[in-house]
Amino acid sequence: MAGKPLIESDRVEGTSVYDPKGNNIGSIKRLMIEKISGKVAYAVMAFDTFLGMGGDEYTIPWNKLDYDTSLGGYRTDITEEQLRGSPSFYRDRDYDWTDRNRERELHDYWRTPYYWGV
Amino acid sequence: MAGKPLIESDRVEGTSVYDPKGNNIGSIKRLMIEKISGKVAYAVMAFDTFLGMGGDEYTIPWNKLDYDTSLGGYRTDITEEQLRGSPSFYRDRDYDWTDRNRERELHDYWRTPYYWGV
Repeated sequence: MAGKPLIESDRVEGTSVYDPKGNNIGSIKRLMIEKISGKVAYAVMAFDTFLGMGGDEYTIPWNKLDYDTSLGGYRTDITEEQLRGSPSFYRDRDYDWTDRNRERELHDYWRTPYYWGV
Repeated sequence: MAGKPLIESDRVEGTSVYDPKGNNIGSIKRLMIEKISGKVAYAVMAFDTFLGMGGDEYTIPWNKLDYDTSLGGYRTDITEEQLRGSPSFYRDRDYDWTDRNRERELHDYWRTPYYWGV
């Protein structure tokens, strides 16, 4: 994947995610795409092997993930503690993402720029 | 899907595409995403049932597709003739998308704005 500016969505799905120490902490299940702009807003991750969090899905701002060619997966600086304390609304699979204030809350929690701009 | 501002990548994959008359002309296989910006650049479509084009895959600028809630799929104004005459380089599955001039050619052909801005 190195050097290629574009990546296939079905290649991102299933890709492993690693913590800062290089431990595999789960994988990407899918991406959440803003329909109108065509921008990837979030990655839904499953932390399959994370301590005590088996099966849970977490929606992470896309820009929290960096592709690491040496790992063959995405690297993130998020920690288990951060995940446990993160806003829980977006873990609801039926959440409809129509409340921008909640998305602000999510981005503010992760200290990352809003994908829709300022 | 109506009203939801975000859509799951694995829900887009497999969604049917319809021509202006409402005929099902194929389906979306995957999305091509610009890694750095996180923007969806293209949709790769398979025109399974298109006349004489079974199995071929075509990469279409994402903004050529509009979701139509009444159809439960994407509507496009592209025609078979346009597809037959479109630049062929991007039908190569190993194409690496590193040549922006070719992407310009593709967007110019489809008369659609560049996804990377002017």
